[in-house]
Amino acid sequence: MRTLYHWPLDPNSRQARLALGEKKLRFKLVPVVPWAPTESFLNLCVEGVPPCLVEDTDGGKTIISTARAISEYVADDGNSRTALLPQSAKMRAEVRRLCHWFDVKFSGDVNAYILSERLEKTMTGSAPDPAVLRIGREHLKFHLEYMSWLLESRDWLACNQMSLADLAAGAHISCLDYLDEIKWDKWPVLKDWYQKLKSRPSFRPLLKDRIPGLRPSRQYADLDF
Amino acid sequence: MRTLYHWPLDPNSRQARLALGEKKLRFKLVPVVPWAPTESFLNLCVEGVPPCLVEDTDGGKTIISTARAISEYVADDGNSRTALLPQSAKMRAEVRRLCHWFDVKFSGDVNAYILSERLEKTMTGSAPDPAVLRIGREHLKFHLEYMSWLLESRDWLACNQMSLADLAAGAHISCLDYLDEIKWDKWPVLKDWYQKLKSRPSFRPLLKDRIPGLRPSRQYADLDF
Repeated sequence: MRTLYHWPLDPNSRQARLALGEKKLRFKLVPVVPWAPTESFLNLCVEGVPPCLVEDTDGGKTIISTARAISEYVADDGNSRTALLPQSAKMRAEVRRLCHWFDVKFSGDVNAYILSERLEKTMTGSAPDPAVLRIGREHLKFHLEYMSWLLESRDWLACNQMSLADLAAGAHISCLDYLDEIKWDKWPVLKDWYQKLKSRPSFRPLLKDRIPGLRPSRQYADLDF
Repeated sequence: MRTLYHWPLDPNSRQARLALGEKKLRFKLVPVVPWAPTESFLNLCVEGVPPCLVEDTDGGKTIISTARAISEYVADDGNSRTALLPQSAKMRAEVRRLCHWFDVKFSGDVNAYILSERLEKTMTGSAPDPAVLRIGREHLKFHLEYMSWLLESRDWLACNQMSLADLAAGAHISCLDYLDEIKWDKWPVLKDWYQKLKSRPSFRPLLKDRIPGLRPSRQYADLDF
């Protein structure tokens, strides 16, 4: 039995879901609201925020939190047919550099503005601040430019094979796309990459997510957007 | 030829130095001031902050930035005698959870207050704000309690072998110890752990670091503090 504590529009939770999905591992989803975790979740996960993966095995319970640790754990199965990390150590370093980029830099530059304003504020009944959103959108433009630049010379973000870096990026981009924050016609190279990623079976459950009171963008679940 | 761009009292740079030191890899150090990087460093490293590792090989230049990617790259050499990641996948996940804890949570809770006030402000000629320092010190207490609690049941932070998690933690703790922010007599379990870590050859170069105008604490370089 495998349970993932998650929140549907949390990019970190989505990274974990995508990694598990890519490895075709079955899991049950239990929702946790990041800004209002339950007492029982706090007892389970010292980080206090999703994602948290719990595996019941004969030897007891394995509890792994943070998108980073869960993704690496799931990738770490020695199955090269569905490898989420490339063979070369140099390329693995590039994957991990980019994962850190999305976990820390993209999160701080973009999520801390756009997602917290448009999701947390909407859910807790206050209005988003347009000045804060403007900053987040300026930062987002820089990040989309950087991703496009990377994709000019590579099939996928870190190298020529799909990796944890694409899952990290895709998790973030998909949340922003739910909120219609990306004007896809301005980013053709990125759009091609996201179309490939979005068509993968691991993405399907994410495209079915709906947040009550917050309708997704028109193209959110459309594979030919 | 291997060059590490670093800043002496930057916990992220220290993680990279410790990992390279544990693996007995030779490298040249080039200083970069995190809040005033040079143009040539910015051309080399898109993150714009140290650490950044440059390896010149026959096949060209390998450039790896972020403490996380550098540490994993250095750990990733298949040499089990000096392994910085444990054999068990479950334990590796715990190492990576804790690395993320220090890279993101500890950094945000403590460095963002204490290090930025006491280092960046001192270096740039302004005075630290006591209210900000107070918040950082409250957070630090929580983190030292958590680390002590982990060490009650483990020889090292993540498991019973020294790992990247200890290097991540040690990198942070050593910067705070330079600034005399840790009252060691209050944290006996943590002190034992830090004494073991500090005695390792990989730590020696760090204990020689001196920042002009900022004298280290009395115990900073003392192995029997």
